[in-house]
Amino acid sequence: MIKIALDMDDVLAATHDKLIDYVLNHLDTDVAEADFHQDSFENLLSVKEMKQVHSVLNTPGFFRTIPLIDGAQEAVYELSKHYEIYIASAAMEFRESFKDKFDWLDEHFPFIPWTNRIFCGDKSILYTDYLIDDSVRNIATFKANGILFTAPSNLRENRFVRADNWEEVKKMLL
Amino acid sequence: MIKIALDMDDVLAATHDKLIDYVLNHLDTDVAEADFHQDSFENLLSVKEMKQVHSVLNTPGFFRTIPLIDGAQEAVYELSKHYEIYIASAAMEFRESFKDKFDWLDEHFPFIPWTNRIFCGDKSILYTDYLIDDSVRNIATFKANGILFTAPSNLRENRFVRADNWEEVKKMLL
Repeated sequence: MIKIALDMDDVLAATHDKLIDYVLNHLDTDVAEADFHQDSFENLLSVKEMKQVHSVLNTPGFFRTIPLIDGAQEAVYELSKHYEIYIASAAMEFRESFKDKFDWLDEHFPFIPWTNRIFCGDKSILYTDYLIDDSVRNIATFKANGILFTAPSNLRENRFVRADNWEEVKKMLL
Repeated sequence: MIKIALDMDDVLAATHDKLIDYVLNHLDTDVAEADFHQDSFENLLSVKEMKQVHSVLNTPGFFRTIPLIDGAQEAVYELSKHYEIYIASAAMEFRESFKDKFDWLDEHFPFIPWTNRIFCGDKSILYTDYLIDDSVRNIATFKANGILFTAPSNLRENRFVRADNWEEVKKMLL
């Protein structure tokens, strides 16, 4: 069976949107909300502000209550009838995220068993046929078929196959 | 650089030995201690006893204080000068183990960064050149060069390249 690995943050979980809410409500920034939907935090925030963002990412509970990306749940369920689905998150960057991410998957993707969940760092060690990820670096180092999932951080990237949303993924793979 | 993935339990960490101590001290079993060094718990314990073993594996703290396997720390440090080392544990089976395993790695293998740590289930999705693991299933489904690390559960297996200890691994790879 063909294997597909799916990233979590900004592919299944609307992590960037939750962080925008945090930044607008807790940081004293002049950046307009619309700009955060067009570029990465790294490009828009100061080093000090990025430290605050990293700090909230390391807060227990942060990853437990992230909203779903539109259409992700239903699309992954449909894909799971035809493909072996793995969920691969670079969770190792955030020690406090492990249980929250695991429990979030239990809540929203209970049909993906523990055998098919991966917390890693560098995703170049993944041996699946597809990887759907919003990180340009992950898609660039992946050995098989990468699909770049559109996110504010990758809008100007044009080297890879791209899906703007889960409807487009379904059209490609179902 | 050639990539080597290393299992944690019974390759880096003496998990089976710690479980033997637990079984002998807490379960009412007639199995002799020597037998636990020659066969798997699955083959020696009852279903009810195995449930107790699984319960202790899911206790917060269990994986945090496991002793090192003889020679593992020094051998992995030597290997890390010549190979890109990843540590890949099937931690997903035990939700309470994540932080303990991460902190254990910070203590004993601080030279392996978070980018090179993997918590997974099915290891057939690993894309490295070598996998050193005591699980026959993991070695059997691995696509590249598997090295079966000797443990009580695999003594009767003879299909794979085997290393009895870290001295043998060093002789093979250094």
